Amino acid sequence: MLDVFDRCRLHDDFEPVAELGAYPYYRPVQERPATGEVVVDGRVLVSAGSNDYLGLSADPRLKEAACRAIRLLGTGTSGSRLVNGSLALHETLEGRLAAFLGQEAAMVTATGFLANLALSALVGPRDAVLADQLIHASLIDAVRLSRARMRRYRHNDLAHLERLLRECDPGAAGLILTEGMFSTTGTLCDLPGIAALARRYGARLALDGAHDIGLLGAGGRGAAEHHGLEGAADLHTLAFSKCFGTTGGAVAGPGQIIVYLRHHARAMIFSAALSPASTAAALAALDVIETEPERRRRALAAADRLRADLAGLGFETGASRTTIIPVHVGDTVMCCRLWRELFDEGVFATAMVPPSVPEGRALIRVSTTALHTEAQLDRIATAFAAAGRRLALIPS
Amino acid sequence: MLDVFDRCRLHDDFEPVAELGAYPYYRPVQERPATGEVVVDGRVLVSAGSNDYLGLSADPRLKEAACRAIRLLGTGTSGSRLVNGSLALHETLEGRLAAFLGQEAAMVTATGFLANLALSALVGPRDAVLADQLIHASLIDAVRLSRARMRRYRHNDLAHLERLLRECDPGAAGLILTEGMFSTTGTLCDLPGIAALARRYGARLALDGAHDIGLLGAGGRGAAEHHGLEGAADLHTLAFSKCFGTTGGAVAGPGQIIVYLRHHARAMIFSAALSPASTAAALAALDVIETEPERRRRALAAADRLRADLAGLGFETGASRTTIIPVHVGDTVMCCRLWRELFDEGVFATAMVPPSVPEGRALIRVSTTALHTEAQLDRIATAFAAAGRRLALIPS
Repeated sequence: MLDVFDRCRLHDDFEPVAELGAYPYYRPVQERPATGEVVVDGRVLVSAGSNDYLGLSADPRLKEAACRAIRLLGTGTSGSRLVNGSLALHETLEGRLAAFLGQEAAMVTATGFLANLALSALVGPRDAVLADQLIHASLIDAVRLSRARMRRYRHNDLAHLERLLRECDPGAAGLILTEGMFSTTGTLCDLPGIAALARRYGARLALDGAHDIGLLGAGGRGAAEHHGLEGAADLHTLAFSKCFGTTGGAVAGPGQIIVYLRHHARAMIFSAALSPASTAAALAALDVIETEPERRRRALAAADRLRADLAGLGFETGASRTTIIPVHVGDTVMCCRLWRELFDEGVFATAMVPPSVPEGRALIRVSTTALHTEAQLDRIATAFAAAGRRLALIPS
Repeated sequence: MLDVFDRCRLHDDFEPVAELGAYPYYRPVQERPATGEVVVDGRVLVSAGSNDYLGLSADPRLKEAACRAIRLLGTGTSGSRLVNGSLALHETLEGRLAAFLGQEAAMVTATGFLANLALSALVGPRDAVLADQLIHASLIDAVRLSRARMRRYRHNDLAHLERLLRECDPGAAGLILTEGMFSTTGTLCDLPGIAALARRYGARLALDGAHDIGLLGAGGRGAAEHHGLEGAADLHTLAFSKCFGTTGGAVAGPGQIIVYLRHHARAMIFSAALSPASTAAALAALDVIETEPERRRRALAAADRLRADLAGLGFETGASRTTIIPVHVGDTVMCCRLWRELFDEGVFATAMVPPSVPEGRALIRVSTTALHTEAQLDRIATAFAAAGRRLALIPS
């Protein structure tokens, strides 16, 4: 018998970049001294890769709600939602989320990853899942667990999706999986086109709103509201680790489907419940999302400004119009070197290399929040200018 | 094309018990008025199904540590550990856990479910996983995601495990999965026997310590310490939702394997980091686990006393000697009726019905904590006596 560990020991994907001092991962944040800043390696850096788009993770209202829940209910629920870990607070949040999204019901999960994984209960080996090429790993794993047949269509390519729908076995049930706003590219899904195809072919549509719910649409209801198509998706999934400033996730949809998931989704029934602190923080975040639309506008305006700066310097920033600005580099080692140069210039951004992005499409993912100041955006742009010139990625 | 939702709508497993008013799930806890008590449906009940074995989820030290972390670091990290969600606090906890378990390294995950899922990165389609029949759903899902060949051996059956090991392809790498203390039955794995087989056949052994780390062994290091075999498992997984009184999980093992998992385990790299609050609470829990062995003794003594009471009444309580007391009922509807009678008697226990247990093996899972008072244990025993007699499950 071979040794399971031998394969793991041989592997070191990051040796080339580590030798250059450009290893970009697992850099621990020591402190968050002020809004938009982090301390890493003892240095104060501008945070430029966070998913905290609305700037709520350090909001006093969320902090107070979370601490109050801890004082009243403790630091954990010590059980799964199914058996003894459900709190009235979970149900309050579920009711509020369902109403917010115009759905009948919602189910709160311990993480956003587990919310997506829960969708595996909906389909089986006879069924067909049509999935955008760029969907999140947790959705891919959900389909793998379901053993449904997964077909991937090119990012937002309606003709390709339609061809795959036409090829589906008429005896299969069909489910389309896409994201409202894609986490790596910041692009929106072509919801009008995809929803029309779902209706025409009788497939159900699940929309992962991890990045867009809270951020997009006048009311913050996400990509569906942005497109004026709030009833278009049959199911929404959410992650509280983005706009909601905490951890956890949810699935929202028709009442009977949520009841089914509450009893059949293994990621729900076999996982401990979301903590009182995160549940209370998500509720407080929803209050802010519903009442402070200016946060969305500020986050998006900051991105517009920074995107223009970076494109003006000569960087390729893609087609996004959201808070995510992908700065395309291509080569993995060069991407890590740029990450390191930015770090040295005082900017903490995110290097996205394969398998998070396709081979040869490495990029620095920059994101903006509602609380970035003009001075901080200046610092990010200045750092990119200096680093990009040093590495000859942009004209001097 | 068929409708994905039709299957879900038709399904109602719980109609028979709901009609009897005995639906046992998703009962929301409104308050935790005092140690060992919960308010459900406006009534104060004795909590008798929690995994909070050491009674830490409402401990003032954990609460204070969690609130302090929230004040300093916020209600979320807004990113995955890989890219920008790592905290120095995570690394401190990882170092402490590794030292505690005598392993080289540890990796903290957002939930215990995700810690187990992370193991999927270790094996592939060529490999063989030998798994105890009773292992947790998250481990089964890990193997499914890995596409390794999974063979299940009868619970703790060494002859069966050896036969399966002998049948393995010599070109496969082998991994044995079991739990230190099984969550439904409360039984311990036969670690001496399993570890010997793992060594003899060259398979690696991963031990899920969700329920036993913190509780068993003089130092709280779990089933391995209990058996005097602390070096026997190659990998340990943990869940902070049991003895650690909060949420989250971890994998501990050899340094190079943890480095590999940090870069290849999708449940790690594509999931938002554990919140500052839960990370700090887990650290505070580890302090208590290391310094207050009397909590373990109290929790186990409470179970011994209650087990004797329930067996004395005529209930079948299985072979467990731990804090988990499975009260075997058999029939699903009868099990839910007993759950309801206990509820009416003021006891909040857990009904375990298929698929959590095999068909025809429904049971009420009772568990004790370090903080259960003698009066509360009396109330649980008295409730079982009254309910069991009313349902003719025990002699009058």
